[in-house]
Parts: sequence; structure tokens; C-alpha cells
Amino acid sequence: MRGLLTLRDLSTPEIMDIIELAIRFKKGWTVNFPGKKMVNLFYENSTRTQYSFQIAMINLGITPLSVNLATSSVQKGETLYDTVRTFESLGVDGVVIRHTQDEYYRELEGIKVPIFNGGDGKSDYPTQTLLDLMTIYEEFGRFEGLKIALVGDIAHSRVAHGNAEVMRRLGMKVYCSGPEEFADKDTAEYIDIETAVKTCDIINLLRVQFERHQEAMKMTKEEYHQNYGMTSERVAQMKNRAIIMHPAPINRGIEIASEVAECEKSRIYRQSENGVYVRMAVITLALQGKL
Amino acid sequence: MRGLLTLRDLSTPEIMDIIELAIRFKKGWTVNFPGKKMVNLFYENSTRTQYSFQIAMINLGITPLSVNLATSSVQKGETLYDTVRTFESLGVDGVVIRHTQDEYYRELEGIKVPIFNGGDGKSDYPTQTLLDLMTIYEEFGRFEGLKIALVGDIAHSRVAHGNAEVMRRLGMKVYCSGPEEFADKDTAEYIDIETAVKTCDIINLLRVQFERHQEAMKMTKEEYHQNYGMTSERVAQMKNRAIIMHPAPINRGIEIASEVAECEKSRIYRQSENGVYVRMAVITLALQGKL
Amino acid sequence: MRGLLTLRDLSTPEIMDIIELAIRFKKGWTVNFPGKKMVNLFYENSTRTQYSFQIAMINLGITPLSVNLATSSVQKGETLYDTVRTFESLGVDGVVIRHTQDEYYRELEGIKVPIFNGGDGKSDYPTQTLLDLMTIYEEFGRFEGLKIALVGDIAHSRVAHGNAEVMRRLGMKVYCSGPEEFADKDTAEYIDIETAVKTCDIINLLRVQFERHQEAMKMTKEEYHQNYGMTSERVAQMKNRAIIMHPAPINRGIEIASEVAECEKSRIYRQSENGVYVRMAVITLALQGKL
Repeated sequence: MRGLLTLRDLSTPEIMDIIELAIRFKKGWTVNFPGKKMVNLFYENSTRTQYSFQIAMINLGITPLSVNLATSSVQKGETLYDTVRTFESLGVDGVVIRHTQDEYYRELEGIKVPIFNGGDGKSDYPTQTLLDLMTIYEEFGRFEGLKIALVGDIAHSRVAHGNAEVMRRLGMKVYCSGPEEFADKDTAEYIDIETAVKTCDIINLLRVQFERHQEAMKMTKEEYHQNYGMTSERVAQMKNRAIIMHPAPINRGIEIASEVAECEKSRIYRQSENGVYVRMAVITLALQGKL
Repeated sequence: MRGLLTLRDLSTPEIMDIIELAIRFKKGWTVNFPGKKMVNLFYENSTRTQYSFQIAMINLGITPLSVNLATSSVQKGETLYDTVRTFESLGVDGVVIRHTQDEYYRELEGIKVPIFNGGDGKSDYPTQTLLDLMTIYEEFGRFEGLKIALVGDIAHSRVAHGNAEVMRRLGMKVYCSGPEEFADKDTAEYIDIETAVKTCDIINLLRVQFERHQEAMKMTKEEYHQNYGMTSERVAQMKNRAIIMHPAPINRGIEIASEVAECEKSRIYRQSENGVYVRMAVITLALQGKL
Repeated sequence: MRGLLTLRDLSTPEIMDIIELAIRFKKGWTVNFPGKKMVNLFYENSTRTQYSFQIAMINLGITPLSVNLATSSVQKGETLYDTVRTFESLGVDGVVIRHTQDEYYRELEGIKVPIFNGGDGKSDYPTQTLLDLMTIYEEFGRFEGLKIALVGDIAHSRVAHGNAEVMRRLGMKVYCSGPEEFADKDTAEYIDIETAVKTCDIINLLRVQFERHQEAMKMTKEEYHQNYGMTSERVAQMKNRAIIMHPAPINRGIEIASEVAECEKSRIYRQSENGVYVRMAVITLALQGKL
């Protein structure tokens, strides 16, 4: 299948090619694909991912279509394959899919148009990982030897699982931190939050999904913030050039203090900005037959 | 009123003009209407129709707007006329409407902008009929003398009613088949499914709406499939050059076996592809003042 | 903050500049901003405003994005600031916001991209006021000395509050009329409907929100129409050059008789048309750094 389904399919040089093309786009390089159109099929909510892909398309001269799933045939019980096959027959040049099911793309055997994974189940979210990598590379100029702590609900996080494997492959040392019951020791070695803050180059906060895991949390939002949140005090403990990342949307006052969200160590909105360039790179390489 | 409301308004040469223009578009002919914009007003769900019209517009350089009816003034009880009149005053160059009400367009007297009927009640669906005709014409090079069987829930099908009248006018012999209680003998002569499969040039399956007509069906999905569904065994009985059509979305395992959906006799995804060209033709002719 | 939040921030010459630019657009003047994109964030329903802004953008060569709030992160409890800040980081060139909260924009301190207020709470709706002003100016060539009656539910009307202040500033005499319990004597002097109809140059009907204020109304729709509605009889009493306006959507048979909605004194659909030009003017001035 063409496009980008999981970074596990890509070699390290291929990952670096994407990041380097994204950086060229950020510096003003342009490519144009007039007359192309792509569709965004979102089976799960995500403002950020959906509009980031749309804006990446617009920047490349591609017309984005967005399927409102509330008003679609999906309700009529059509299979994912048939929905995608229909869009292929309508002549779209790519399909972005976000789906609640892990590795949904295994059902799409036979589809010829490029598929871009906008997140599948708890498994993977390759363009998020790529934008995280771009942000780190932009900051440090390398991956080798950097220490990153994933802080929060690692067990339920698509971002954590996607990132840990690739980051390790690129020579980074990956830790997890936050509430110990939410750590996933298969994903990364656990360290306590105070150690993480003092020793890591990157503190990668994850979204705490209080709405979903209230009971399992066994603590209030205030307690979470006090015990594991990124407060001004913890920011002051960070190494000189260390940075804070977060896939957003952020919960101010829970995983991050409001006054820290845009502090000089925060790269949160730069990640969001880089996401557009990374998606432009991935789409461009796919349309050029290189992905 | 301008645009395309029902094929009953069109002469046979006018229908042929649309099909021939659609075929030219499929061969690569292009027309461009820069600066034009059109709106899709969908009062009923339909991924396929909505995106097919949008892609037709994009291919012609027209910007499509899609009204999300869940977030619109429609909820405030505005009349259809006032909603369309408003879009006209906003400067749109055409309005596609899909509505649950039969012949809703009778309320639109006085609207000057072209209206394209994307389906009204159980009555009509002219661009679906046109894409079916284009697919048949592409296959056989003529209509005269061809035998078609509409199989399934004829009584509740907009497609069946729209197609039968025009196909007969073009010289085709139209039958209906499937569960006898869902046949509509005013629409077409009834024949049993085994005869249909063996004698017809086109088997035009219709969607079985189990979700709506469960009680009336008096049979399970499996029984429907066994009694009336397009199975590999029935496909093997078909005439040499005969084809299978379906307006989609398909129910795999009900009206069609999954392994037959894309067999070499199936034109299901070609219909979907042809729909874009037919809509490009209709829009082009309307903007040129010929519809 | 850049853009247009409230007309209270603008001087009379600045308001006249917008109206005059809108009139130039109506006469065929064009400006083009290729590569720009803007987002419409609607936290409250409004077909008219949303599509009017989208069409204004398209006319200026700007790609509009519309956020479907039903499928957005907004549900995850993100702050308005963070949502807007995210779109800014994604590279949009402007954000249109409609929100239920009065002066929501006070939370947006620090946002650099232009914000266009598409309506906030019961407080303000500057582009509606501007299109009303453009329609009046187009009709009479001046504001000084004109008498306008706002008729209907003044107390709950965003339009009434926005319009009264600015119209008075431009030298107009502003009255309110309709059910006395819905008048807002701080907004304007109350006069009875028969006097309003006979003496005013502009009858500006407001939408009666029966769905919201049923109990407070203490009358049926028919009684409202008889007592305060714009009937043929009342139209016949109007001054020679006087006009009828309404922000739409209209309730035929309540605040206006169906046969009067498009009579020769009605400017209702011209207002809708002018709205596009006014929004083009506001966007243009903001992108040129003048707003």
C-alpha cells in the first residue's frame, strides 16, 4: 500500500528524508500539485490533525475534502474498504484516515491511492511522531544520546507507543514518568517525575484523559497537577537547553500550569506549526511515488 | 427553473447530449469556470452524491460549499425557498439539493440560479439515472433492445422509479425482481431472480434497507442473500457480456456476495467514477445556459 | 488585537471607509490574496454568517476552512485561546468567530492573527451592523436625519444593540417598537408600531424567537403578526421611499407576511447580498494592516 501507515515500515534514512523535506518547506521551499484533491476521513474527533492535514494540502495547491461522518453513508454500515474504494473511484489523489481501530489499514488491501494514517486506535500516529522528531531535530540538530521522558498516561497513549520505538531507533534514551499505574514498562523504563525534570533534554507531556479514566486515576486534577504536572517550580529545575513538548490539546492546570504553556522552554505551538510542514513532506513524497 | 430537476423534463436527444459530454470528460476533455462557487444543500445523508458533486465542481474549477445541516438555520424553521434564495443572494452559481420531500423543487419558483436535484423523496434522482445510462452506453454502445432487471426493494427505491421511465423511453426492456412483496408492478413487469440472471443484459441491484424495513422483510439477511442475492453461482449463470450494477453503498453478504462485488462483471465502482463525469456534464451545460 | 471585534473601536471615518470599499466591491472592483487561508470557528449556528464569510473569502482568492464544532477538540475542554492559538500556529491568516459569550475576544489577548467577530452573545455583531449601514447608505446616500424603527424582540437581539449605538453616532434617530415588554428603553425610545410604520424611513424587523421565549410572549404567532407584524396593510401606510429590513432568517407569517417578504420596499435579500461585500471589505482592510 502507498502513503504512510506506520513508521515501522520506514528505514531511518527514509525518516530523515521526510524531516529534511519538512525543514525545507519551513524555510520557504514550495511544491505545487494543481488539480489534485484529497479526502480526510475522520472516524474519531481531532481538530488539530484534520485541519493540519487540510492546511498542508492547501499549501501544496491540493483541494481538501472533509467527510463529515455524522452525515455520511458510514452510518449505513458500509465497510471501511468500500468507503475508501468509493473515494478512489471518485478520483481523489489521497486519503487521510483517522480511526479508532488498531491497524485499520490491514482491511485496505487493494487500494491503490495513497493512504495517510492520521491515527489508528492506541497503536500509531506517524505524522505526530514525525513532527515531534522534527521539533527535536530543529532544536538539537541530532537525536543520538538525547534523553526524553514521556510523562502521563502512557498506557492509553497512541503518541507514546508510536514515539518510543522510533526514538530508540534514532539513538535516543526514552523514559516514561507520571503516575506509576499508567506507565507501560514495555514501552520505556520508568523514572520519577523529579528525576525526569532534572535529567532529560525533552519533557514530552501527554494529555491526561480525566474524562475517560476518572476512576483509574484515583486522584483529583489538582493532585495530578501537584504530583506530576509541569509547574513553574519544575520548569526551573530543567536543564539549560531542555524543552517541553505536548501533542495538544493541553489541559491547563492539569498536566501543565497555565503560565508555563507558552514559556521560553515550551515548544507546544511550534510542534503544531511543524506538523503542517511534516504533512506537506509526507504528501509530497507520496505523490512523487517515493512513499 | 434552470438546472436539472427531473429527467422527465428532458428529451431523449438532451439526455444523449449529457452522456456524450460526460464521455468526453472521461476521455480528458476539460472546461474551467474560474471564480464560480456552488453550494451543496443536503437535507438527507449521502456521502457518495455529496462528494461526487463536490469533486465534479473541483474538476471544473468551481469552489464547492457544503452546508452542514446540523449547524444551520434550517433548524430555525426557515423555508427551503428562503434558504435557497439566501444562497442566491450570496452570489452562488448553482445549488445542489437532496431532500426527503418528493418534488421539493416545486417550492422554488422564482429562483434564478441553477438547481441540481441530488435526490428527492422516493421520486427521482436524475444524476444517478444518468450515470447508470452512461455506464450502460459505455458497455453496449446502445440502449435499444437491452434487458435490465431492477432487483430488490423497488417500492422504496428512488433509483428504480427514476430509472425505469427513462430506460423504457430509450428502448430498453425493464423488469423488476427480488422479493415479490417489494416489487412495484406499475414500475416494471416482475420476473423471478433466476430468470432475470439468465436472460438480462444488466442486473441492477438495489440496496436492501434492512434498517428501515425489517418487519416487512419477513426474512433474515441470510435468507435474502440466498433467495435473491447476487452469489457466485448466480454470476456464473449470467450471459456472456452481461453486467452487474448497484447504486451503492453496497451491503456485502446481503444483496451481493462479498467476493462478487468487484468481479469482472461488476461495474459498481465504474458507476461511481462515471457519476463524477455525468455531474461535470450537467453543471457545464447549466452554466452554459443549455439546461 | 487586529481584525474587527466591535464597531465601538472604530471612528466614524473608519466605518465609512469600510462601507465605501464594500460599495466598490459591489461595483466589480477586485482584490486577490492568493495562498491565504482563514478559518471559521462557529460555536453557535448561523448558516448565513458562516457562508457569507466563506463566500467573501472565496471572492478574494482566500481558502476558507470551516470547523465543525461537533467533531472538534472543543469538546475536550480546550480553552478558546488555545483553539485560536493552534489555528494561528497552523498558519491561518485570519479567524472568524461566532460565540455565545459576550466579548469572548477579551480572552484572546496575545493572538496576532486578525480576528473577525461573527457575533458574540447578545452584545455585538459588527458585520451585520455594517451591512445594514451599507444597505441604508446605498438607498438614501446619507445617514443624517434618517429615522429607523427596530421592531421586535429588542431585549434579546444582538443586532439591535449593535445597530442602535452606531446609527445614533451617524446622526440617525433610532426608535424601538413591537411588544412593549420586549422593548429596551436604554437602547432606544419606544414608539407604537402604527406610528413607526407611518413616520420612519426604515422599518428594521427583528427575528421573533418564539422557540426561545414562548412563555414571555403571552400571545400566539397569529396575534403577534396581527399586532406587530409587517402586513400588506402596514406596508401601504409606509412613506414613499421608506424601506423594510430584516437580518434574516425571516419567520413568514410572524414578523412579516409572506407576500411582503420580497415586495418592492423589502431590502431583505439585498442585505444578504451586501453582507458579502462588507465582509470582503473588512477582510481586505485587515490583511492590508488597516484594521
